Amino acid sequence: MGEFDLIERYFKRPARQAVLGVGDDCALLQAAPGTQLAISSDMLVEGRHFFANVDPCLLGHKALAVNLSDLAACGAKPLAFTLALALPRAEAAWLAPFSQGLLALADAHACELVGGDTTQGPLTICITVFGEVPVTDGRSQALLRSGARAGDDLYVSGTLGDARLALEALRGTVSVPAPVLAAARLRLEAPTPRVALGLALRGIATAAIDVSDGLLGDLGHVLKQSGVGATVDTDVALGLIASHADYSGAGGQFFSQIAPDQWLAWALAGGDDYELLFTAPTAARETVSAAAQASLTPVTRIGRIHAERGLHLVDKHGHTVNNTFCSFDHFA
Amino acid sequence: MGEFDLIERYFKRPARQAVLGVGDDCALLQAAPGTQLAISSDMLVEGRHFFANVDPCLLGHKALAVNLSDLAACGAKPLAFTLALALPRAEAAWLAPFSQGLLALADAHACELVGGDTTQGPLTICITVFGEVPVTDGRSQALLRSGARAGDDLYVSGTLGDARLALEALRGTVSVPAPVLAAARLRLEAPTPRVALGLALRGIATAAIDVSDGLLGDLGHVLKQSGVGATVDTDVALGLIASHADYSGAGGQFFSQIAPDQWLAWALAGGDDYELLFTAPTAARETVSAAAQASLTPVTRIGRIHAERGLHLVDKHGHTVNNTFCSFDHFA
Repeated sequence: MGEFDLIERYFKRPARQAVLGVGDDCALLQAAPGTQLAISSDMLVEGRHFFANVDPCLLGHKALAVNLSDLAACGAKPLAFTLALALPRAEAAWLAPFSQGLLALADAHACELVGGDTTQGPLTICITVFGEVPVTDGRSQALLRSGARAGDDLYVSGTLGDARLALEALRGTVSVPAPVLAAARLRLEAPTPRVALGLALRGIATAAIDVSDGLLGDLGHVLKQSGVGATVDTDVALGLIASHADYSGAGGQFFSQIAPDQWLAWALAGGDDYELLFTAPTAARETVSAAAQASLTPVTRIGRIHAERGLHLVDKHGHTVNNTFCSFDHFA
Repeated sequence: MGEFDLIERYFKRPARQAVLGVGDDCALLQAAPGTQLAISSDMLVEGRHFFANVDPCLLGHKALAVNLSDLAACGAKPLAFTLALALPRAEAAWLAPFSQGLLALADAHACELVGGDTTQGPLTICITVFGEVPVTDGRSQALLRSGARAGDDLYVSGTLGDARLALEALRGTVSVPAPVLAAARLRLEAPTPRVALGLALRGIATAAIDVSDGLLGDLGHVLKQSGVGATVDTDVALGLIASHADYSGAGGQFFSQIAPDQWLAWALAGGDDYELLFTAPTAARETVSAAAQASLTPVTRIGRIHAERGLHLVDKHGHTVNNTFCSFDHFA
């Protein structure tokens, strides 16, 4: 199978929304009048972002999901994406499920593959995704990292830390019962981009970011760019680990072999969560709740924003918790 | 140096044309009314597209140049790009010259870096570039592969084959005198994207493609998508190898050690030329010539398009030349 057969067989489909899709020097997109194009790019490298033996169908899903998560954090509606793929070999047994997982998620979000590149090399997937954000009365409706204000509530969607639990189990550093691992592994290998929530939060959230490197690290970007500080409730965070909540009552070997601090580190700095972390005025609590319901996405208030700079962690009794949690950095 | 320091230090500059540049979940671009966005993505992998010891400044230039070349082939005006970079280590000695070469070419084309990703991994560079194409009276002005018509002339810009000569010299398969290698190596390592020519050919060229995998292979895409055939003059192609033209008169060991067929293979299927191959009606010969002059880009008529399918090679006497030339395919 040659390079052009490969594209033809697994990745070329007729353009629907794009003016021109796969198969020329460039793809052509025409943005709707009164909109801006939101653009994000993510690169996944074998051995770094995924294990060599990961299910190619899930990998295809995840490669696009992490990009859609960036659009979600901007409140952008997915439109299209490009795929650049370095592959050691052109094998149908890998390409067929990979393109299936990729294109199934693309279809679910009406986000079409419009172009890209294929080359031989160590397995590397680079997706650049395009979304649409309306401009109303001259103001962009994009959710930015820089809009958090003192007094805002701090929210996070979905659950935290289970992806990291799965990663540790797959690395062999913890032993996890099969049903717990199966559920946690889905969070690691098939994250759900919170696109509907991002769209529902337009005009409500003051700032947003997607949690990819760990909650506290990503919150740090919001605080820095907004020029504010925050206090986070660590007990609320702990309650957002699905595996923790499901098994803390049952007790047993699995649950107790993991120290409480370890659980908390996974919730606050686990990485690979792909949830939305966002801020909104306290007056908007009901609208936030309605947006969460309309988008079928659970949302939890996890802290608050204040003028005093810095990041403060407290437990449910209001006692300070030392912040010894490091979020993920590729080069630190 | 951490991941975010690295971005801040080498890649973050204030957005000029973009609504929002590096530093949020997404970049924001607002296309001018009445325009389409042309999008292209290319991935360069160490050991595959460049040698490990290549000058990082030239590599930065080339990574963007090959993408700008795709915009040129569409007649699109460069606007912005994203950079996804996998690096084994974060080293200033590599990052500083790489970003310098990259951003110098970006500045020369007013094409700004608006976002991307950095990760640890085998050195891999993925750039996605965005350009603007006007829509006039409801018709896109983009140059496509599908527009060649029987009777059109076939043209190529600049020179051919020198990049491949340099590649073979660096691989050690041929011995090339230092001044020849220096010139040829610039064609391999610092190609000139033909952006000005692409813009000048809007409304004149009927089809266009950039020559990256080799002239005949890329011509094949135009013929297939336009549903036509072509005849190419091999002696004209041979005359487009700068090293051949410069040294054929002088004779000597270097020139004669390379068989005429080998020279021709490099011209017709060498790869890495990044020239524009395009078609235009015979009635447009003077306008093509004026576009070439206005864009300071030499252009040569190398053949013609005909209704009869297939690719026919002839020498200057009109005799058929057997086509045994294979263009580059990553998986063939």
